[in-house]
Amino acid sequence: MNFAIIGATGNVGRKTIEVLEKSKLKIDNLSLVASEKSVGQKLRFKNKDIKVEQLEKYDFSKADITIFAAGSEIAEKWIPRASKKTIVIDNSKHFRMDNEVPLIVAEVNPEDLTNHKNIIANPNCSTIQLMLPLKPLHDKYKIKRVIVSTYQAVSGAGKASVDELFSQTKNYLNKKDIKSENFTKQIAFNLIPHIDSFVEDGYTKEEWKMENETKKILDKNIGLTATCVRVPVKTSHSESVNVEFENEYNLDTAKEILRSAPGCKVVDEHKDGGYITPLEAEEDYLTFISRIRKDHSNKKALNMWVVSDNLLKGAALNTVQIAELLLRKK
Amino acid sequence: MNFAIIGATGNVGRKTIEVLEKSKLKIDNLSLVASEKSVGQKLRFKNKDIKVEQLEKYDFSKADITIFAAGSEIAEKWIPRASKKTIVIDNSKHFRMDNEVPLIVAEVNPEDLTNHKNIIANPNCSTIQLMLPLKPLHDKYKIKRVIVSTYQAVSGAGKASVDELFSQTKNYLNKKDIKSENFTKQIAFNLIPHIDSFVEDGYTKEEWKMENETKKILDKNIGLTATCVRVPVKTSHSESVNVEFENEYNLDTAKEILRSAPGCKVVDEHKDGGYITPLEAEEDYLTFISRIRKDHSNKKALNMWVVSDNLLKGAALNTVQIAELLLRKK
Repeated sequence: MNFAIIGATGNVGRKTIEVLEKSKLKIDNLSLVASEKSVGQKLRFKNKDIKVEQLEKYDFSKADITIFAAGSEIAEKWIPRASKKTIVIDNSKHFRMDNEVPLIVAEVNPEDLTNHKNIIANPNCSTIQLMLPLKPLHDKYKIKRVIVSTYQAVSGAGKASVDELFSQTKNYLNKKDIKSENFTKQIAFNLIPHIDSFVEDGYTKEEWKMENETKKILDKNIGLTATCVRVPVKTSHSESVNVEFENEYNLDTAKEILRSAPGCKVVDEHKDGGYITPLEAEEDYLTFISRIRKDHSNKKALNMWVVSDNLLKGAALNTVQIAELLLRKK
Repeated sequence: MNFAIIGATGNVGRKTIEVLEKSKLKIDNLSLVASEKSVGQKLRFKNKDIKVEQLEKYDFSKADITIFAAGSEIAEKWIPRASKKTIVIDNSKHFRMDNEVPLIVAEVNPEDLTNHKNIIANPNCSTIQLMLPLKPLHDKYKIKRVIVSTYQAVSGAGKASVDELFSQTKNYLNKKDIKSENFTKQIAFNLIPHIDSFVEDGYTKEEWKMENETKKILDKNIGLTATCVRVPVKTSHSESVNVEFENEYNLDTAKEILRSAPGCKVVDEHKDGGYITPLEAEEDYLTFISRIRKDHSNKKALNMWVVSDNLLKGAALNTVQIAELLLRKK
């Protein structure tokens, strides 16, 4: 089986190489593709150096499955032609809400892969980790409404944004001038309640994505409202989630459901340190759930804290899992 | 008029000196009081050095109004005897839920000061800044339920915790070992979903305080559920707030109400940078409100982002405002 990664040298591209290497997929050939400025770079895969090829010159018929780990513009321009020759799994937001494109979280809605037209979309990172605990809770109790506040790591904004967090932090400590180029304001020792561009009613696109992707993946009748905030953390997104069910629920049963949720791990002791922090979730394939408790203001509602590596389950891992699902179907 | 500050050398004590100096209060004498280890230190007030006195030896009859900026244990031990000789305004949580003790946010419930018994409690920092926008919204639309996720600065945990954030950050950047003494886990480039101790149903005391103090200050019929999270920010707490009213509301009217809310400033443009971040609220007396928008999942609900300097409005400033209210009454 032949694979290609478009945007191989970025944060998500590199993670995808790592995840492919650890996977059980039988990979005969892996093409690493990027923009002109990265051509000639070599990246390691299974003890071999692979030369980065140029997107403009790449022949998509060389790959059975191509993972796009680039932005929306690249996706818009290249995926329509690529998908005539290869199955595309796209990380960008461009095709997610297209009715003809399945939007897949591997453990949650694999059945939606049926009848894909060679393009499959990977959801937004902050959506994916939320779907994992919500899916089995929805199956049991039917979710009416979700209120989520996010605490999102800078690596979700790309490699340059990670560098900016660290350079701003150094300059702050050394009392030097701080420049913001990737973020609209200083991110070091600060928070920015704004991710992706603003849409007309005062929401950001990131918040809009969580709302609409959840409807597409889980159930169009679920209401969701999100506030998305960038925090000075390198990797792993955290989410404070309030879930309201149609009916009353049992907390112990809900906890049992979460403990059995595919791809999840519950870490929830009512004591110092008995919960997960983003630093601890980094490099882990699992989505962690802590602070599960009854909402005193509404007996049909539950609070929880959900943390996952945004580059892994939020991106690279889920795309590789989608590839595995595609091959299993054959 | 004679004033005293107990715990004068801590984060909040020092801020209280600053706020008193800027206030219009006529202060004849200011006593600065602390534990034995700080005795002999000198702190500046109105171009004069004041020597720190020892709590155990302090004569409370010297002050008309005494502001306690110390912890619960000091409050429990000393306030019952102090309040026989001076009016006490206490920052700690110890007396807040006592039926005989008014719990005051200056702009919100000054009328509750009537019939105090020489002890007045200052609410928790994360509660105070939330009350300012909620009060006028409640007056107009009657609030049914509030769901809040906090992003709380380390200075709320004291001076040693601020030092720990910066020393951990330096060690992280220099690849040295990181020790956590004030926090249960690393706070540098991380988040800790745990503030104050755990209570029995899985909530933390900080979350419990927000819930119960809101009922005492605003209305016992308001339901509130909180998730409190420590973030690697030095000063200013931020809150992602979802407010559900009893009835449908008008967004423009709600915005107008918030623009006129005492002690508040709305900063809310739907564009890059058109919102407040904690760094920008530092050193400011105002509570800032951004990201005001209709909740698509419930037409009776509204989202907003609320930021305030936790050492000022969340502590020192509100206690000085309480003193001003007490003197205005006379």
